[in-house]
Amino acid sequence: MRLVLVGGHTETARIDGISAAGATPELMRQTPAADLELLEYGQPVDRPVPVSPSGCPTPAVMSRAARELLGIDLLGVDAGLAAETVTPTVDFGGSVGADVREPEPLPDAEAVVAAGKRVGRALGDERVLIGETIPGGTTTALGVLTALGEPTGVSSSLPENPLGLKRRVVAEGMDASGLVDGDAADDPVRAVETMGDPVLAAVFGLTVGALESGTDVTLAGGTQLATGAALVRHEGVDAPLSLATTSFVAEDDSAAIEELADRLGLELTVTDPGFEHRDHPALNGYVAGEAKEGVGMGGLLARCRERDIEMERFRDRVTAVYDRVTEQRPQP
Amino acid sequence: MRLVLVGGHTETARIDGISAAGATPELMRQTPAADLELLEYGQPVDRPVPVSPSGCPTPAVMSRAARELLGIDLLGVDAGLAAETVTPTVDFGGSVGADVREPEPLPDAEAVVAAGKRVGRALGDERVLIGETIPGGTTTALGVLTALGEPTGVSSSLPENPLGLKRRVVAEGMDASGLVDGDAADDPVRAVETMGDPVLAAVFGLTVGALESGTDVTLAGGTQLATGAALVRHEGVDAPLSLATTSFVAEDDSAAIEELADRLGLELTVTDPGFEHRDHPALNGYVAGEAKEGVGMGGLLARCRERDIEMERFRDRVTAVYDRVTEQRPQP
Repeated sequence: MRLVLVGGHTETARIDGISAAGATPELMRQTPAADLELLEYGQPVDRPVPVSPSGCPTPAVMSRAARELLGIDLLGVDAGLAAETVTPTVDFGGSVGADVREPEPLPDAEAVVAAGKRVGRALGDERVLIGETIPGGTTTALGVLTALGEPTGVSSSLPENPLGLKRRVVAEGMDASGLVDGDAADDPVRAVETMGDPVLAAVFGLTVGALESGTDVTLAGGTQLATGAALVRHEGVDAPLSLATTSFVAEDDSAAIEELADRLGLELTVTDPGFEHRDHPALNGYVAGEAKEGVGMGGLLARCRERDIEMERFRDRVTAVYDRVTEQRPQP
Repeated sequence: MRLVLVGGHTETARIDGISAAGATPELMRQTPAADLELLEYGQPVDRPVPVSPSGCPTPAVMSRAARELLGIDLLGVDAGLAAETVTPTVDFGGSVGADVREPEPLPDAEAVVAAGKRVGRALGDERVLIGETIPGGTTTALGVLTALGEPTGVSSSLPENPLGLKRRVVAEGMDASGLVDGDAADDPVRAVETMGDPVLAAVFGLTVGALESGTDVTLAGGTQLATGAALVRHEGVDAPLSLATTSFVAEDDSAAIEELADRLGLELTVTDPGFEHRDHPALNGYVAGEAKEGVGMGGLLARCRERDIEMERFRDRVTAVYDRVTEQRPQP
C-alpha cells in the first residue's frame, strides 16, 4: 500500500475567485510543494503552511495526521510544479499548465500521460491510493468532463462554489480550443491537452498503468479524481476502480459525486471525520464548508476506517499536527 | 529512521579498470538509477539489474532484501545522475562529475553541498542512514582524502584493488588542480570541487545539515562514506557520527577502514552477512571479494542486527530477491 501524491500547477488558479488553495495568488503557486513537504517531513520547508484566504488549513494537515497513524509510504510526483520542493518526487517531465482559456493549455499532455503509465506499471504494490494537490484543479476537471461529454458537477475549495464562474471559464476554453461538449469523448489525451492540467494527465496515466499491472487503485479525492477516472474510462479501461472521498464533497450538491461515480462504475466510499464534534481552528473551516478534500484526504480517511482507527483519534492527531506546524519557531 | 540513498555519476568511472559497478561502461552510467529503482520498487524499471563484468550483482540486491525485512523508509537523492529514474528523488541541482583528472571536475560543488545541508536540516528524523551509489566513487574518495591530507587507503568493487592505478589517477588530478597533499585541509568544499564527485558533495552537506538539526547519522558504507565523514570533520563539525560497513570492507587491508574511522572519531560497526554459508550466484561474488559494499548495505546489515533479524533470514531474502529480479519476464 502506497500513497501516490501528484502535485502540479495551472495558471487557471490565477483567475480571481476560482480557488481558495492559498492565502494569495503568489502563495498558491507554492501550495503543492508545501503540501508534499508537509506529507513527507511533517511541515513545509522554508515556506508557510498553506491556508485559504480565511485561514482554513490545507487538507495536507489532515493527510499528514492520517499518514502518521497509518505509517503509509508516500510516493511524490512532480507532474508540473510551479515551485521547487525538497520532497523526493518522480519528475514526469511536465510543465505548469496554462490558463484553460488558452487553445492548448497542456501541450505536453501525451508525454505526461506516458510517464504516468510507465510509473504506474512499475509500482508493484498490491494497492495504491492516488491523490492530488493543484490549486484551480476543479475548474480544469470541469473542463475535461465537458470535453469528454460527461455530466459536469464539480466541487470547490470555497464554501460557495463559484460554479457559474467556472462554467464561463470552461465555455471560453472550449471555444478557444474549437470544441463542443463531448468532442473529445474518444480521445482522453486530447481532452486533457485542451481543457486539463498536468495533475489530471498524470493521474490518468498512473491509474491506467497501475491497473494494467494488476495493482488495485483507490482514487483518493473528490471531483478531480473522479475526472481522472472519467479519462480512464474514456480510454476504454473498465477494470474495477474505487473512489474514496470525504463527506464534505459528498454533501456538496453541486459536486453530484455519487451520480458521477455511478456513471463511471466507481465503487464510492465516503468518510465523515466528525469535525463538528470539536471546536478547533484546524477543523472549523471544514465544518463551514471550506477546502472539503484534497491531498488524498478522503482515501486516507477510508484507510483509517479500514484499519479500525477511530475518527476521534484521527481528530486528536489533526489538532496536534496543526498546533505543531503553526507554532512560532525558527525555520530549519 | 530513514535510509537516504544518494546517487550520482562521475566520468572518472570511464577510466579502464577503475570500477566494477556495471557490466560495461555504458551500463555503468545506468547503475545508480537502477539501484534506486531496485530499492524503491524491488526491481529496475526498463533496464537490467546492475552486475559486475563477472556477473556479481549490485549491493542494491542486498539492500533491497534488508529493506523488505526492516520496512525502512527510503529517501532518494539525485546528486547528479547520468540517467533518468522513475524513483522519487530530491534533485540537488548537481551535474555528473567530470573526470577527476580535470582541474575542476565538480564546479557546482558548493551548491550541491548547500542543497544537502538544507535537506539534511529538513529531515526531522531521530536517526538516518546515509548510503551511496556511484561507480568510480572510491577513486574520487581517494582524491578527496588526498586533498584533505588524510591517510589514503580506499576499498574497491574489484577483488584485486587497483590501488596503484587509482593513486596515479589521483596524482594526475592533484597536479591538474594545482594541489599538493593536504592543500584543501581547511576547505572541504574546495576538496570536493577539485577532487570529488557529486555524491560526496551531497553526503557531506546532508550529514552536516542532519547533525545540525539533532538527527543521529549513521553513514552506511565503506571508504566513500568515511570520506564523507572526513569532509564533515574538516568543516569543523565534531558531533558524534557512526560508520556502519560490511566485513568485506573491514577485511580489505587496502581500505584500512578501522584506522580511518579512528582518526575521524567515528563509531565503527562491522557486520558479516555470512555469505560463505551458502553457495548461490547472488552471494558467491561477494565471498570472492567483489562489490564488498554499497547502496547502504553495511548500515542496513547493522540495522538488521539491531532489530534481531538473523543473518540466515537475511540471506534467504537476498536469494529470493535475486531470483526474482533475474527471472526472465516481460518488462513492465
